[in-house]
Amino acid sequence: MAKASVETLASRIDQARGHAAADLVVKGGRVLNIPLGELEEADVAICGDTIVGVGADYTGTREIDARGRVVVPGFVETHVHVESTMVQPAEYERLVLPRGTTTAICDPHEIANVLGLEGLRYFLASAEAARFDLRVQLSSCVPATHLETAGANLSAADLLTLRDHPKVLGLAEMMNFPGLLAKDPSVLEKVAAFSDGHIDGHAPLVRGRDLCAYAACGIRNCHESTNIEEAREKLARGLQVLIREGSVAKNLDTLLPLLTERTWPFLAFCTDDRNALEILEEGHLDHLIRRAIAAGVPPATAYRTVSWSAARAFRLHDRGMIAPGQRADLVVLADWEACAVERVVAAGIPVEAAAPAAAPAPVGLHSVRLAPVSPETFRIPAGWSAPTIGALAGSLLTEALPLQAPVRAGQRVSDPAGDVLKVAVLERHRGTGNVGRGFVHGFGLQRGALAASVGHDSHNVIVVGTNDADMAAAVNRLIELHGGFVAAADGAVLADLALPLAGLMSLRPAAEVAADLRRLHAAARGLGCRLDDPFLQLAFLPLPVIPHLKITDRGLVDVDRFELLAA
Amino acid sequence: MAKASVETLASRIDQARGHAAADLVVKGGRVLNIPLGELEEADVAICGDTIVGVGADYTGTREIDARGRVVVPGFVETHVHVESTMVQPAEYERLVLPRGTTTAICDPHEIANVLGLEGLRYFLASAEAARFDLRVQLSSCVPATHLETAGANLSAADLLTLRDHPKVLGLAEMMNFPGLLAKDPSVLEKVAAFSDGHIDGHAPLVRGRDLCAYAACGIRNCHESTNIEEAREKLARGLQVLIREGSVAKNLDTLLPLLTERTWPFLAFCTDDRNALEILEEGHLDHLIRRAIAAGVPPATAYRTVSWSAARAFRLHDRGMIAPGQRADLVVLADWEACAVERVVAAGIPVEAAAPAAAPAPVGLHSVRLAPVSPETFRIPAGWSAPTIGALAGSLLTEALPLQAPVRAGQRVSDPAGDVLKVAVLERHRGTGNVGRGFVHGFGLQRGALAASVGHDSHNVIVVGTNDADMAAAVNRLIELHGGFVAAADGAVLADLALPLAGLMSLRPAAEVAADLRRLHAAARGLGCRLDDPFLQLAFLPLPVIPHLKITDRGLVDVDRFELLAA
Repeated sequence: MAKASVETLASRIDQARGHAAADLVVKGGRVLNIPLGELEEADVAICGDTIVGVGADYTGTREIDARGRVVVPGFVETHVHVESTMVQPAEYERLVLPRGTTTAICDPHEIANVLGLEGLRYFLASAEAARFDLRVQLSSCVPATHLETAGANLSAADLLTLRDHPKVLGLAEMMNFPGLLAKDPSVLEKVAAFSDGHIDGHAPLVRGRDLCAYAACGIRNCHESTNIEEAREKLARGLQVLIREGSVAKNLDTLLPLLTERTWPFLAFCTDDRNALEILEEGHLDHLIRRAIAAGVPPATAYRTVSWSAARAFRLHDRGMIAPGQRADLVVLADWEACAVERVVAAGIPVEAAAPAAAPAPVGLHSVRLAPVSPETFRIPAGWSAPTIGALAGSLLTEALPLQAPVRAGQRVSDPAGDVLKVAVLERHRGTGNVGRGFVHGFGLQRGALAASVGHDSHNVIVVGTNDADMAAAVNRLIELHGGFVAAADGAVLADLALPLAGLMSLRPAAEVAADLRRLHAAARGLGCRLDDPFLQLAFLPLPVIPHLKITDRGLVDVDRFELLAA
Repeated sequence: MAKASVETLASRIDQARGHAAADLVVKGGRVLNIPLGELEEADVAICGDTIVGVGADYTGTREIDARGRVVVPGFVETHVHVESTMVQPAEYERLVLPRGTTTAICDPHEIANVLGLEGLRYFLASAEAARFDLRVQLSSCVPATHLETAGANLSAADLLTLRDHPKVLGLAEMMNFPGLLAKDPSVLEKVAAFSDGHIDGHAPLVRGRDLCAYAACGIRNCHESTNIEEAREKLARGLQVLIREGSVAKNLDTLLPLLTERTWPFLAFCTDDRNALEILEEGHLDHLIRRAIAAGVPPATAYRTVSWSAARAFRLHDRGMIAPGQRADLVVLADWEACAVERVVAAGIPVEAAAPAAAPAPVGLHSVRLAPVSPETFRIPAGWSAPTIGALAGSLLTEALPLQAPVRAGQRVSDPAGDVLKVAVLERHRGTGNVGRGFVHGFGLQRGALAASVGHDSHNVIVVGTNDADMAAAVNRLIELHGGFVAAADGAVLADLALPLAGLMSLRPAAEVAADLRRLHAAARGLGCRLDDPFLQLAFLPLPVIPHLKITDRGLVDVDRFELLAA
C-alpha cells in the first residue's frame, strides 16, 4: 500500500462523506460484499485510486452506470510467466486487464535466464509504467540446472539488490525442490535471504515429509498440483493452492472439487503459462471463473477466491474487497455466472478511458548471439548410439526410445518415414559454440524443419528437421529475426514469427502474434507435423527438470539420473 | 517473521524429513487443520521455534503426549491494554499464556499518557523479554483530548522513531474519530505516517458515510461495536470486527450471531480491558471461545477465528495454522468444546518448562508528582451551581443531574444522605496544581473516601468522599504509595493497593493484586458504596470522550459539547 499524504486523506474524507463529489462513482450496481459473501445494492465512490464510499446516493465527477450489473473486485493472477504470452508486458496488460485482471504477480523466469538482472529490471520498469498492478517475483532458479548453458546466473546477492523495489513481492517459485531437500547451500542461501518475506513454491508431486520440509523453509504456496489428493495434502500443510489453467498444464477441472465454502480462503487461481492465442479465444482469469461456476462453485465463492484469497495470500492487504480504503480495482459484470466482463476500473481509472499502457524500451534485442550455421553443424556420426527422445502429444514428459536413425554416407540422418528426426540445441548466449544433438520421435515432419529461440529454461535455439540443409535454413532465419519461430522447407522460409525481445517476446500486438502463430501451425501441419502445438512441444524439449529424456546445448540429458548422457 | 539462517533451514529440513529427531514432538493428538477446517490425527514436529512436520510417526528429543487430546493453534489477543490488568506485562503473560494466548497485540495507551515514549519503550522491552509474542501498537491519541492534562504529548514524529521496531505492528486505535472526520491536521498527520502500514480502529457507533470516511483513511478494524447492526455494517465496509469481552465492555453475546462459517475470516476476538481478577476467575480468550461454542459456534470456526483470522488481520503471516513453516504456537486441549487448556507451547517451548518471563526494570516509579494535600484542597464555595455527575452502575456513560449539594459554613459540602458526594481530580504529572472539583451521585458512600491514580485517559488522581478530611487522607496515602487505590475513613486507611509502576501497575503477582482488590471492594461496601466495582467506575469518571458529564483536572466537561463547563 502506498503512503497517503495528509491532502489525499482530506480528499478521501470529503468525498466519502459526500461533502465533495467523488472522482468516480460506479452507480446502482449490485456489489459483491466480500466479508458477507453476498450481493448488496450500492454505489461505489472512488477518490483517486482508492474506494472511499459504499452506499446509497453518491455523486461523482464521473459516473459509470452499473444498473442491472454486478460489481466485483478486480481479479488477481497469482502466478504467471508473461513471456509465455509472447508479447511485451504492456501488451499482456492490454490482453488481460479488459478481462478483469487488475493485479498480476509474475515471475520473469524466462527473460532472467536470457538477460539476468537486466531482464528483471525490464519487468520492473514495465510494472512501473503499467495501469494494472504488475508485481514481480525475483526468479529463484537461474540457471535452472547445471546441465545447460543459460544467459545468466543469479545469486542470492544479485536478487537482494532488487528486493526492496516497490513492485517486488518476494522470491519467485522455488523450482529446485530437489536442491532444497538436499540442502544445496546456494539454494538455502536464497531461501534464507527471503525467509522473513514471501517465497513462492513449485513442488510437483512432492508429498509427505518432503512436502513438510519444503513448507518448513517458509515456502507459502504451490501451483503445480495435478491431482486432487496432492492438492488436498498441500492445502492441509498450509500451502496456498493456486489452481492453474494454462495453455500446457490444465488442472482446473481436476482441482475444483477442493474449492468449497469452507476452504476458499486457502486457494487462488493462476494461469502460469498461457499464450496470447488462448487468452484471445477463451479468456484469462474470467475463463477460469466461468468454468468454476459452471462446474458448481457458488459465484460468491469463486469471486472471493480470485480476489480476496489471492490478494491476502500474497500480502496485498490493500485490495480484494469493495470497501473503503481498498484499492479501486473493480469489474462490472453483465452476467456474473458467465463472468461476462463489461467494464473494468483499475486503481480508480476506467480502463477504456486510460491511455494505452506505456512500455519501456525493449531490451535484449540482439540476444541470439549465433553466427550463421551450415548444414554441417548438424552432422551426427555413424557411431552414434544414444536413445531417441519420444515426444508425447500434449505433454511435457518425454520417453527414451531405443529407435536408431539410419546411416547414410557415414552419417546418422533423419528418417521421416520412421518419424526419427534430428534435433539440435545451439547455445546462443555466450558464444560457447555448444551444440547438443540427438533424435526425436513424435513430430511427424515429412519434410522441412522447425526452429525456435524459446526453449525452456535456458532458451537456447532448438531445431528439429528432416534434413540438415533445412535445419540450417530455419536457424539462419531465426538469427536474422533475432529470435522467434520459423518453419522452413526446401531451403525456403514458409512462415515465421519474430520474437526479438530476448528471443522470447514480440514487439507487435497480440492479435498479430496470434495470426503469425496460426500461419506457423498451418505450415507445420503442411510439413506433416501431427502435433497440435509443435512449437510449444519444441520449446519444452530442452527442459531438463521434466522426465525422462531431454536435450540441452550440452547434449542429451537423462533426467531421471539428472546427468548428461554420454552419446 | 524473523529471518532464518542457512543452518536453521538445514535443521528444519533434516527434522521434517525425519533424518534427525525433532526438537519437540506433540504426539498422537487430533490436530485442527485450519485450511480444511477439520480434525486430523497427526504428530506435530517442531524444530526450534517453527513447526516442521505434521504427520505420522515423528520422533522427538522431547515429546508431549497428546493422545485423546485436541491440538489447536495458539490464540491471538487482537486488542488489549495490558495496564488494565494492573500487573506488569511479564505478569500478564503468566496469566494468559497458560490459558492459550500465545500472541497479544497491545496498545500501551495508559502508560503512554503518563510517561510518553518512555512508557512505549518499557512495553517494547517487555515484549523483547517475553516468551509469548507481545506486539505493541503505537498509541495514537496521547493526550486523548485537549480538555485534560496528560503526562505526555506524542506527535507523529515521536511515533515514527519507534515504527521500525520488530515488535511494533502499526498505529494503535485511532480513537479520535471526530478529529479524523474533521480533518484535524495533527490527526491526519499520524494516519498519513502509518498509511502504508497497519492502523487499528476505534469507532463506537460510527455508521454510514462517516464510517466510510474513517475506513477510507486506511483504518483496518474496530473493537467498539456494541450492537449487531453496527458490527454488521463495519464488517460489510471491510473493517475486521474484533469481538470484545472485557471487564467493563461485554459484547460477546450481542455480536456472536455475526460469526458464521461464511464470515469467520473477517472477525477476531479481543478483551480490550480485562482485569486480573476476571482472568483468574473466568479465563482469558479461552473464556471467550468457551462461551462462543456454548452459544452454538462450531468449534472449528471458533478456533479458526481466534488464530488464523486474527493473525492474518494483523499481517502475522507466520502463525495461525498448525502447518510446517508456521510459528510453533500450540494449545493442547483436554476438551475442545469446553476449551479446557491442558498444555501450551509458545514458539516451540512448552510453557511450564520455560523460565518465568523476564521483566525489564519497572519505570515511572515516582510518577505521582503531587505534594501532600490538606482538606482545604477540596473546598467548593457556596456559589457553586454546576450540575452533578450521575454515575450509572456498570456503565461508562454518565448523566448530568440538577442535584445541588448543601451549603455549610459558606462551603458546598458532600451530602451522604442524598448521595451527592464531592469528587476531585488532581493533576499529577506536571506540577500545574490543577484541581478539578464537582459532585457525583451514585457511589452511595455513607462515610470515608475512595481515591485512585488510574483515571482514564490522563491518569490524574481522582478522589470521591463524604468529607474533605478523608479525601485528603486517601490522596495522601496514594501519594505515599506512588499510585494505586485507597479506601479511607475517619482519617485512617482501611485498604489499599499500590500501583507504583506509572501509578497504573503493581510490581506484585496477579493473585496478590486480586486479593488487595477484593479487600478494597469489601472496604468500599463497608463504607456504604453500592457499586460492584467502585474503583473501575471512579477510573472512568475523568474520560472526556464518553458522554455526558465528566471531570478532569481542568474541571467538569460537557462531553456533548466537548468543552469545559464554567462552574
